[in-house]
Amino acid sequence: MPAEIIDGKKISSEIKESLKEKIEDLKKGGEVPGLAAILVGDNPASQVYVNMKAKACEKVGIFSEVYRYPKELPESELLKKIDELNRKKTIHGILVQFPTPRRISEEKVILAIDPKKDVDGFHPFNVGMMLAGKPTFLPCTPLGIQELLLRSGNDPSGKHVVILGRGSLVGRPLAPMLYQKTKGANATVTVCHTGTKDLLGITKQADILVAAMGRAKFVTADMVKPGVVVIDVGTNRMEDSTTKSGYRLVGDVDFDSVSQVAKAITPVPGGVGPMTIAMLLSNTVKACEMLSTNRSAD
Amino acid sequence: MPAEIIDGKKISSEIKESLKEKIEDLKKGGEVPGLAAILVGDNPASQVYVNMKAKACEKVGIFSEVYRYPKELPESELLKKIDELNRKKTIHGILVQFPTPRRISEEKVILAIDPKKDVDGFHPFNVGMMLAGKPTFLPCTPLGIQELLLRSGNDPSGKHVVILGRGSLVGRPLAPMLYQKTKGANATVTVCHTGTKDLLGITKQADILVAAMGRAKFVTADMVKPGVVVIDVGTNRMEDSTTKSGYRLVGDVDFDSVSQVAKAITPVPGGVGPMTIAMLLSNTVKACEMLSTNRSAD
Repeated sequence: MPAEIIDGKKISSEIKESLKEKIEDLKKGGEVPGLAAILVGDNPASQVYVNMKAKACEKVGIFSEVYRYPKELPESELLKKIDELNRKKTIHGILVQFPTPRRISEEKVILAIDPKKDVDGFHPFNVGMMLAGKPTFLPCTPLGIQELLLRSGNDPSGKHVVILGRGSLVGRPLAPMLYQKTKGANATVTVCHTGTKDLLGITKQADILVAAMGRAKFVTADMVKPGVVVIDVGTNRMEDSTTKSGYRLVGDVDFDSVSQVAKAITPVPGGVGPMTIAMLLSNTVKACEMLSTNRSAD
Repeated sequence: MPAEIIDGKKISSEIKESLKEKIEDLKKGGEVPGLAAILVGDNPASQVYVNMKAKACEKVGIFSEVYRYPKELPESELLKKIDELNRKKTIHGILVQFPTPRRISEEKVILAIDPKKDVDGFHPFNVGMMLAGKPTFLPCTPLGIQELLLRSGNDPSGKHVVILGRGSLVGRPLAPMLYQKTKGANATVTVCHTGTKDLLGITKQADILVAAMGRAKFVTADMVKPGVVVIDVGTNRMEDSTTKSGYRLVGDVDFDSVSQVAKAITPVPGGVGPMTIAMLLSNTVKACEMLSTNRSAD
């Protein structure tokens, strides 16, 4: 029986609908959630992402500003802008679209953002709070994966989750998020990567397999056990002369074969991708709620 | 063949000897590493720990101060003291011995310590830097475990490390330390805990097993594969009328049976324990070196 498709587009739409209601409530109280996005340089993919994020804000009623700078922007100017946005009352979330040009230190940029406005969940302070199991902004893609699992009826609690990849955006933070003793987590977690020997022996044990190593169609049907739940985080470009762009997006999972044995699987595109943006919106609303609560308490 | 004993006392002595040399060099440059320890209340175990730490400082040439307060100390007074120590030039490392009395928020205490003086590696900022793979203070017990593995010839790279326990002091931070792509790490890591089903199926896969769940003699010979390397982080009191104190310390591992099948194993006491203090000294020296480097750069 072919796998159930975990529809990230549908689930993210539901999340956005419920955010709309929260935003309406905030607006009644005089608060409008605001997100500032900064884009340096003219990387086409980054431009697409920033535009998608701004559009998604508009749709749910989040105020957004996009600051676009030429790739020659000095690092000091970028840090000054971040500092200004840290203090700007109408802005609750700040995101800098990565990658920035090489001259600019991503570490410095991340450290410059006020952790209270760090809606990407990249600031070490927030990462540390996450690892300690304290309330904080969780990084958008791992959070989106957790939501996909929960909302598709695949609570990771008690399950063996195998994560392929230890990148800073997904594998590295996702593992501690899922092994902590909280609702929606409490999984036994194994992290595999390029240094893993006997990968097949481990992937075959997974109740839930998260593929996030960035290798097109790497996971094949013979690597998983029947009934596995598969979350495919990969977005790899593959040449395809039949499309207008000349390429198409494929995941880290060989969807055609794995979907024949899995219980459930996310497609690419339309799985994790839309969730990442929904979680960014969710974090921005949360940032606004927190600031508004703090103001009422003053 | 019975297992090789990984001698934490001997290894920690070697580390302390090499720290002595570093400290001599620092002193020649006019810097003396300084550690301040704060103890609130009269918990006997905490008193023992603080005294051991102060004595260990003295032995290697680190200047140390111990502040002892009655359990009634208001939280605000403690935070004021920490703030004072944050600014004190002769102090490079600050540790507050936990647990503090219930009235005092451990979270507030940890957040009050300047991350640059956080030699316990507990501050969320440092925890986040660790997860991001950036240079920072690593928490003493996980760091001690990594050193034990490396100095006993059991580099975790490419090995399957199974960690039992997800506590904030050991399991939770150790996992990302060992799965990152750095020297002395690069392991495939599985984290198990009370929510794990089929624990036996997983422990039997371990090339390196770290037992840190706080259950006396929990790990038995039938749970491991022959040739495993075992790190026992447990320190459980067991009644023993033949000892003067009426108890003895036992680990989370049933040493007698597991040492018959393991390749190498740490004893309790004398394994991980002495390493934790050695790493605290090492972090204090590192803190002093960093501050001294920054001063030279001014």
